[in-house]
Amino acid sequence: MPYFDAASSAPLHPVARQALQASLDEGWADPARLYREGRRARLLLDAAREAAAEAVGCRPDELSFTGSGTQAVHSGIYGSLSGRRRVGRHLVVSAVEHSSVLHSAASHEAAGGSLAEVAVDRTGRVSPDAYAAALRPDTALAALQSANHEVGTLQPVAEVAEVCRAAGVPLFVDAAQSLAWGPVEGAWSILAASAHKWGGPAGVGLLAVRKGVRFAPQGPPDERESGRAPGFENIPAIVAAAASLRAVRAEAEAEAARLRELVDLIRARVVEVVPDVEVVGDPVRRLPHLVTFSCLYVDGETLLHELDRAEFSVSSGSSCTSSTLTPSHVLRAMGVLSEGNVRVSLPIGTPAEDVERFLDVLTWLVTAVRTKLGAPVAASGPGAAARDAGTGSGVEAGAGIAAEASDAGAEEFTVDSLGRLCPIPVIELARAMEGVPVGGVVRVLADDEAARLDIPAWCEMRDQEYLGEHPVDGGTAYRVRRRS
Amino acid sequence: MPYFDAASSAPLHPVARQALQASLDEGWADPARLYREGRRARLLLDAAREAAAEAVGCRPDELSFTGSGTQAVHSGIYGSLSGRRRVGRHLVVSAVEHSSVLHSAASHEAAGGSLAEVAVDRTGRVSPDAYAAALRPDTALAALQSANHEVGTLQPVAEVAEVCRAAGVPLFVDAAQSLAWGPVEGAWSILAASAHKWGGPAGVGLLAVRKGVRFAPQGPPDERESGRAPGFENIPAIVAAAASLRAVRAEAEAEAARLRELVDLIRARVVEVVPDVEVVGDPVRRLPHLVTFSCLYVDGETLLHELDRAEFSVSSGSSCTSSTLTPSHVLRAMGVLSEGNVRVSLPIGTPAEDVERFLDVLTWLVTAVRTKLGAPVAASGPGAAARDAGTGSGVEAGAGIAAEASDAGAEEFTVDSLGRLCPIPVIELARAMEGVPVGGVVRVLADDEAARLDIPAWCEMRDQEYLGEHPVDGGTAYRVRRRS
Repeated sequence: MPYFDAASSAPLHPVARQALQASLDEGWADPARLYREGRRARLLLDAAREAAAEAVGCRPDELSFTGSGTQAVHSGIYGSLSGRRRVGRHLVVSAVEHSSVLHSAASHEAAGGSLAEVAVDRTGRVSPDAYAAALRPDTALAALQSANHEVGTLQPVAEVAEVCRAAGVPLFVDAAQSLAWGPVEGAWSILAASAHKWGGPAGVGLLAVRKGVRFAPQGPPDERESGRAPGFENIPAIVAAAASLRAVRAEAEAEAARLRELVDLIRARVVEVVPDVEVVGDPVRRLPHLVTFSCLYVDGETLLHELDRAEFSVSSGSSCTSSTLTPSHVLRAMGVLSEGNVRVSLPIGTPAEDVERFLDVLTWLVTAVRTKLGAPVAASGPGAAARDAGTGSGVEAGAGIAAEASDAGAEEFTVDSLGRLCPIPVIELARAMEGVPVGGVVRVLADDEAARLDIPAWCEMRDQEYLGEHPVDGGTAYRVRRRS
Repeated sequence: MPYFDAASSAPLHPVARQALQASLDEGWADPARLYREGRRARLLLDAAREAAAEAVGCRPDELSFTGSGTQAVHSGIYGSLSGRRRVGRHLVVSAVEHSSVLHSAASHEAAGGSLAEVAVDRTGRVSPDAYAAALRPDTALAALQSANHEVGTLQPVAEVAEVCRAAGVPLFVDAAQSLAWGPVEGAWSILAASAHKWGGPAGVGLLAVRKGVRFAPQGPPDERESGRAPGFENIPAIVAAAASLRAVRAEAEAEAARLRELVDLIRARVVEVVPDVEVVGDPVRRLPHLVTFSCLYVDGETLLHELDRAEFSVSSGSSCTSSTLTPSHVLRAMGVLSEGNVRVSLPIGTPAEDVERFLDVLTWLVTAVRTKLGAPVAASGPGAAARDAGTGSGVEAGAGIAAEASDAGAEEFTVDSLGRLCPIPVIELARAMEGVPVGGVVRVLADDEAARLDIPAWCEMRDQEYLGEHPVDGGTAYRVRRRS
């Protein structure tokens, strides 16, 4: 039963399990106590800290264990902001950070701080120049992930750290997605990570704060973990986290090469076997085990559900698979297609056969979903048969296509997709375009948030001219001119 | 090797270990995901929540799992204060709360809130009337522990909850020490507890917030655990915590009766075999497994060290055993002796022989420590032999006893204990008193913080008249009149 969502949480590594079980007997007492049981617990904690610090690339006394990666992020950002309060309250983050970073940033802004979001290019990557431009004399902190959690793009952390160092601004790095593969390069100041991402147990985060970085822990004082992570240390889990980090690092180079080949296979094959697919994220500077693509004219929720029925567990940034009903902020920031979005992140040890089978199943499922929705599929590829199906239940019911005179006097076709969810507005647009002459304009009325991202993305994929959007009663009108 | 510090952290319960191991395979995925592994994790989490809620006595949707008991306390107090911000910013706590509560209260005060500390009697117990008197129209929250962690005294939670209910103020209960023994009675509003106190794993706290209580989680928003505990849930540990809580509850009544007998034995025997000992805390309304006593003329650090060498692990509120070099805030609030303080908290399953042996070892060790310090030990009991030892290294070196005319013209003896640590000032006082006529006054100059608590406590134990303190160069003068 292939689990392809390691970026969300990795299965427990055998070394983590072993270390956890071995330390349950010795790691339950309070390491702050001086008696025998406390001393034993302290020894375990100290050894785990040394091992984890070596893997992070910091001194043991720079490293605290927190109760989760989220706690490490919150504590790291707030502690740094507070420690540099005298400098100012300006925070710089990238637009594609993990939600724990963006939520911290939003809270900081709500509390009166100021915030700059650095944009990314279509691969999801920031530029060091953009960070340089965003830094101000009152910038207290800059934050940048080591690698993006949704599309796998590696960020230029070392370069951005250098830019920050030159400006005297500390750099916070969320290393959650990359720490299994190696230490974060460059002169970062604060670093956060999460053990369950590398096969360690849940309940353990890492927070490294370099010596010399001004840091003022927030919340009620607590003497544990340098005051940076209140609460009784979970020592067996910490021991397991450190042991498994060492273990995955020992096999990281070989496993990265192996998984990179499997991901390359997916990247190459998915565009061959599935028509109208967009592979997103940097094709080269990326995590070895993660690939993300979006399938035009596909309902993400149905696709994930069908993949689950076929025993493949994957994740998605599509709007219809999230509780917010908006596409993921990462895909939005990148300006790429979000419908039918699938993130595949391979756990270590994934066999090649599972990947082969996944591609077969995906091909078949995408075709089936499109057929059901009556999507206008491209002529090439296995989906071609579905092209003129037209009998799907999805489109006919709500499609209202009407021609009217546009402002400029030219004929403009209106597609009323109000009240209809992704991918219907895009399907209706595509079908309408078939009946519009070159130079003609289709206006799609939609209230689904995904349309804002997916209609321009469709235009880019199809080489049609996106003219922009404007508000209308009950939603938004998106205008597209037929180019070819 | 008897471990008698269950109140600090209990050894892992066999049921916790079993449940932890059993759920490692099914509990590692993200319970927010809809695929197979996520659904399995969700099932485990839901079942654990139901079991824990039943043990707490609340609805499952009122209960959140946090990353530690400390986190539950911080989140519970801040969330309640923030939720009732419109009512006011007044917080009422007892003087003997756990440091996590008092630190939260101090942070609240530092941030501009107001704070009232309700005093306790000599047994460590608050009175509901005192809470009623402390509540104000702008009181946002009152906090009271279910049982004291240092002396075991049960608090009148149900009565205080009633007082609070009548005033429309929610009551936060820190139930960390008592939850193993039964649910907290009464109409509390918010409750916090910690799994490693009942033999569950570290890394799991409980936070219950009754429906209808205004609660605004603090910190960056996070969708997990009703927004009250950010971070990825540690499901195997949560499952183990819930399972072990059920297990300890199933045996709670019988085990409480058995341990209560052992504690009664300690309470009765310690005053027989160790002269000049004060058993502190409520003798009846108390936790079944915990007893605390203080031994006059004993250096707590040495005593704990010697007990550890004899393989008994206990805790202490003595100043010389803490990093702050002040007696515990609980003993200070109670106004009882702190020197030679020992807290014994028996884990479930403690055999009676271990307790018998502890009493033997304790008797011998206290005598040895006193002999070494040259303490003026009472005539009765095994310590009597040490009475006129006088050759101890502790006192002679620094004791400077000088007679001078006091303000009132009567002769006043001064003992200069400046620069000397507990228990030396009290030993020097006791020795000086032997040479003072009835009606005479001894003035002890000391800069050790413990003297402020222990000199009045000595007077109470010895039935001498404590006249008060006043500042002197480099410390404080404590004046005592000989009564008999």
